[in-house]
Amino acid sequence: MRTLDWVDDAIEMIDQTKLPQVTETLRVDNVADLVAAIKRLSVRGAPAIGVAGAYGVVMAAALHDPTGDRQAFDDAVLSIRNARPTAVNLAKMVDRVAPIAATDQAAALAEAHLIRDEELQASIGMGELGADLVAELVSDQIAVPGDCLIRVMTICNTGGLASVERGTALAVIQTLHERDMLHEALPAETRPLLQGGRLTTWELQRMGAPHRLLVDSAAPFLLARGAADVVVIGADRVAANGDTANKIGSFSMALGAANAKVPFIVVAPESTVDMDTPNGDNIEIEDRGADEVADIRGIPVAPKGTPAVNPAFDVTPVSLITALVTERRVVRFDRGETI
Amino acid sequence: MRTLDWVDDAIEMIDQTKLPQVTETLRVDNVADLVAAIKRLSVRGAPAIGVAGAYGVVMAAALHDPTGDRQAFDDAVLSIRNARPTAVNLAKMVDRVAPIAATDQAAALAEAHLIRDEELQASIGMGELGADLVAELVSDQIAVPGDCLIRVMTICNTGGLASVERGTALAVIQTLHERDMLHEALPAETRPLLQGGRLTTWELQRMGAPHRLLVDSAAPFLLARGAADVVVIGADRVAANGDTANKIGSFSMALGAANAKVPFIVVAPESTVDMDTPNGDNIEIEDRGADEVADIRGIPVAPKGTPAVNPAFDVTPVSLITALVTERRVVRFDRGETI
Repeated sequence: MRTLDWVDDAIEMIDQTKLPQVTETLRVDNVADLVAAIKRLSVRGAPAIGVAGAYGVVMAAALHDPTGDRQAFDDAVLSIRNARPTAVNLAKMVDRVAPIAATDQAAALAEAHLIRDEELQASIGMGELGADLVAELVSDQIAVPGDCLIRVMTICNTGGLASVERGTALAVIQTLHERDMLHEALPAETRPLLQGGRLTTWELQRMGAPHRLLVDSAAPFLLARGAADVVVIGADRVAANGDTANKIGSFSMALGAANAKVPFIVVAPESTVDMDTPNGDNIEIEDRGADEVADIRGIPVAPKGTPAVNPAFDVTPVSLITALVTERRVVRFDRGETI
Repeated sequence: MRTLDWVDDAIEMIDQTKLPQVTETLRVDNVADLVAAIKRLSVRGAPAIGVAGAYGVVMAAALHDPTGDRQAFDDAVLSIRNARPTAVNLAKMVDRVAPIAATDQAAALAEAHLIRDEELQASIGMGELGADLVAELVSDQIAVPGDCLIRVMTICNTGGLASVERGTALAVIQTLHERDMLHEALPAETRPLLQGGRLTTWELQRMGAPHRLLVDSAAPFLLARGAADVVVIGADRVAANGDTANKIGSFSMALGAANAKVPFIVVAPESTVDMDTPNGDNIEIEDRGADEVADIRGIPVAPKGTPAVNPAFDVTPVSLITALVTERRVVRFDRGETI
């Protein structure tokens, strides 16, 4: 099921701010509402925002005919492009559709659909290649070949909610589930924003995949006690040497996997590989401030004014990563392969 | 400042269920109220519960004269002893005071005071020995000897709230602070019950020690990026070989410390060393169920009915532990010393 799509000349999306308590479809039929939805994180995840932005340009052209009031159209497009300045996919997809929309609205809609379909295809590709790899790696490890009841640990939300359908690392878990090879998924809750607890569990429930949630700090110990066969995570950026920036907690899970000799796999589209970043040392880590740590969904969990150190991401060195899976290839770092 | 004491024939204690929002002193002058306070975790931490239990027996004797209605006295003592069945300190201290209280109320009160004072002395001892060790280990590491502005990472609550005053690992941090050697404390929030975020920050604030809170999963990455000079934790049980059971997340921090070559120190009273447990493999880990994970202080953070795996503790192997500090000795595992 798609978490975001174009339905009767408007964008329909699962409102992620309401999850997990309420599953509500938000219908957005104008540019101002789309910008607001992106800003308040009703839609999040780089590919999902990119697709939303592409359809947003189509709406902008329908509302402000570019062959008439060009300035109004350009302003609307710019407001979408700037709704999340750090999300490179958004700008990229807006820039891809806007020149077409300026002259041909039908062609612009076709281009937006193409962007959506490319994301879907990439997710399917990552899921297939990733599931093949996991099956291969795990069959090396388990006692009875063929007994492929695989237990997969993961972190953050890397599923359809961050994309259009299926996603990246969660697409691998979904594919394993569809192949009847998944024993259980073990998502970490992913403090501070709890994307694992709020969103990944919701997606796993929706796809009927067995799962148990864990607090982030339990991951390395559970791995040490043999609770999972493989760790599969997404990525925010993959450096040229394979070092991977991802949600805080990924590095901890990678240390735990290495300690337990469990394969650790990064799943990300080719667009996430940044050949301009030679290695992880060059990746600057954003500190998102104390509020997210001291306050959980409106409930204070530390004394008022408690300072915090809150790195949003961490960097896992390639030495701890078994392989990178994209929509078109598998790079086996453990065998000395390079990107 | 003591978090629990005997004041005008009653126990006065900081009510830990109200922290960090409200600092409220709870006055308990009868056995039923004490049992209720222990059960709802208004007082928690093995040494603190032990002291509370000792004074509880004194109250029981005052309310039900054992030389008169012996049955009522015995029943009251038993109700205290059973308020937290797994807390070995509680039973131990109740059993120490009850036979005295049966014949001599004044002597029983003196014994309870002695128990309190022994806990205070043990905390002072652990703080001194631990601070000496940290200073020694860190001065080996830092560039400019004498520039002892030490950054200490820790987990859970191991301070006065878990004891009477000062505590175990937090006593080391407090002693470093009193010696003007603490740059900052870095407490992890300690999901699921957030004792680090709610209680340790409160204690650090109260002692005026600089600190920044972190989510648990950030600890290994912050260590890798050089954010702390030493990790100091408490213990629930130390096995004969040095393997240490402690709050979930301790093992993850130990892996992070080993990766970053940062010393990792366990601070616990001699009573925590269990020579009947040969090593960590023999320590059974309690799973505390899904509710603590799926719900944070009344706010659901996962879909209703989400299953969870929730190990309350983990075991850190002695190979990852630099040293054990008790109130009377330092055992340098890194130098091959044994308990």
